[in-house]
Amino acid sequence: MNSPQALQQTILTGDRPTGQLHLGHYVGSLRQRVQLQHEHQQYILVADLQGLTDNGSRPEKVSGNILEVMADYLAVGIDPQKSTICLQSSLPALAELTMLYMNIVTVARVERNPTVKSEIAQKGFARSLPAGFLVYPISQAADITAFKASLVPVGDDQLPMIEQTNEIVHKMNSLTTAPILTSCKALLSPVSRLPGVDGNAKMSKSLGNTLTLSASERQIHQAVSAIFTDPEHLRVSDPGKVEGNVVFTYLDAFHEDKQQVASMKEHYQRGGLGDRQCKNELETCLQNLLAPIRERRNRFIEDKAYLNEVLKAGSEKARALTQQTADEVKRALGLPVLF
Amino acid sequence: MNSPQALQQTILTGDRPTGQLHLGHYVGSLRQRVQLQHEHQQYILVADLQGLTDNGSRPEKVSGNILEVMADYLAVGIDPQKSTICLQSSLPALAELTMLYMNIVTVARVERNPTVKSEIAQKGFARSLPAGFLVYPISQAADITAFKASLVPVGDDQLPMIEQTNEIVHKMNSLTTAPILTSCKALLSPVSRLPGVDGNAKMSKSLGNTLTLSASERQIHQAVSAIFTDPEHLRVSDPGKVEGNVVFTYLDAFHEDKQQVASMKEHYQRGGLGDRQCKNELETCLQNLLAPIRERRNRFIEDKAYLNEVLKAGSEKARALTQQTADEVKRALGLPVLF
Repeated sequence: MNSPQALQQTILTGDRPTGQLHLGHYVGSLRQRVQLQHEHQQYILVADLQGLTDNGSRPEKVSGNILEVMADYLAVGIDPQKSTICLQSSLPALAELTMLYMNIVTVARVERNPTVKSEIAQKGFARSLPAGFLVYPISQAADITAFKASLVPVGDDQLPMIEQTNEIVHKMNSLTTAPILTSCKALLSPVSRLPGVDGNAKMSKSLGNTLTLSASERQIHQAVSAIFTDPEHLRVSDPGKVEGNVVFTYLDAFHEDKQQVASMKEHYQRGGLGDRQCKNELETCLQNLLAPIRERRNRFIEDKAYLNEVLKAGSEKARALTQQTADEVKRALGLPVLF
Repeated sequence: MNSPQALQQTILTGDRPTGQLHLGHYVGSLRQRVQLQHEHQQYILVADLQGLTDNGSRPEKVSGNILEVMADYLAVGIDPQKSTICLQSSLPALAELTMLYMNIVTVARVERNPTVKSEIAQKGFARSLPAGFLVYPISQAADITAFKASLVPVGDDQLPMIEQTNEIVHKMNSLTTAPILTSCKALLSPVSRLPGVDGNAKMSKSLGNTLTLSASERQIHQAVSAIFTDPEHLRVSDPGKVEGNVVFTYLDAFHEDKQQVASMKEHYQRGGLGDRQCKNELETCLQNLLAPIRERRNRFIEDKAYLNEVLKAGSEKARALTQQTADEVKRALGLPVLF
């Protein structure tokens, strides 16, 4: 694609490496990143430090998944020549900026952040809330601003994070001799969140309702067989419901022929189209999608040296960029930059 | 001094550069540091990041005082060949370790820290408490452990900080493949806190009751003239009180002839020794102490290039040491160390 240079944006996106990536990630972000990398300057952060904010006592859950996530990225088509993949813990400027930003954000303000509030409830923290988890929106603001990202792909539940980041940008820029930080815009995911195969609104490893990108042919078959449809659609001839029917949600998300999906929906609703047939159509679609991804993923996960090399090269580039921002901020606050 | 190498400890101490250092600092810590540097490996941290935790919106209050504090250090006799003076914001490993430790300390635990509690009350924070201020005990633990300090000079109000640091050491060491962090001991100041010249229990710039190390002859004279004595000691012949009488507290802290101070106290208590005479004795003592310090300080503060050079050399050494600790911790948590 040849979009004019003037429209090129700096994008920061990424994932907490707390498990292999799954179909939900693919639909919600990975697929989009493969497109965005052609038009924009895209940085993808393997957010190991953020992964530790609620796994502080289980570091292996994070450290053991860094290369898994790298393999997922490369398998879906993220090209390290076009996107810069980097490791959060290898960019000390992010921690330095977090320390500076923490002083201009009140505890009351982070406690009020709706995303944090709902995640605290969801994860069942109460008095046991780790300090790092409470302040992670500040750390996220450090990530975004360190890269001077102008565009941040998010789900709509993450919009309060963008708002908080821009508050910090505004406050810091008012304190420094010249405005250093760039405010950012949310890039909302074109597809809403993919439900789990069990019909639960959220696909998540802890709920056991995911299909990872490395799923075998057999696992895909089993998942599709067990997928949640319309529980009241008992006979093929009965009219069936499409809303809340995961088969159709997935067909919408993955099937390339939108026309065909539309006519299947119509048929299903008026009766005469069986669940089995719909599932067969979905399975073919998922097997076709995942077979080449799985194959590439297997090759990458065998070559840890290559994955490490890609991570190191990307982190080196990101390290220079983020350090420059941190140094600019420090200088503009009047702090000496000794090195 | 020739203490056996086996008893040599690593000491971390330092100051928030939020103003010039004063007599309270001299008595409470600086004088001790000049002695300790001969026997131990002493690191002195100019804690600019910590200074920002309650000056986030007034960064110039911190940045403008870094070299002032450096000049104070050198003026009292801290020898950069024996002590390593370094700048907190130039040691990214401290921020990195803070990020890691924040994940294993709950918000409830930092809120319960008695030092933090009383400082929050004292500084009049309430809902406006900066996140950075809440978590500063964690950041302090990062500082202490990054240097693998075994001895930390503190006032008794800071003991909860040492306790919290050792909790973090214990917890981290239980999570890493091998114990990396060193627990530390408090080295209590031999002198209790110096009161302000007005008799207030705390000498502090904000209360306007200090004598800075750069005080002129005239300022010393005026401060001693106005110093708080026994308000009921109206005539020279009256018996006077020594407790709470700042002249005697200062004579205890600064006069070299303890015998002479003891007999002055006795004389004052039975009556016949005037405030004027006591103040003269104290003034002589303070003028003698501060004249050479002031003179050296004036020379140093004129030579900013030299101060920066000392700070850079010390920070370089500290940077290598603290980075090594952070890398060891990361490796022991299973995180990749790419650079």
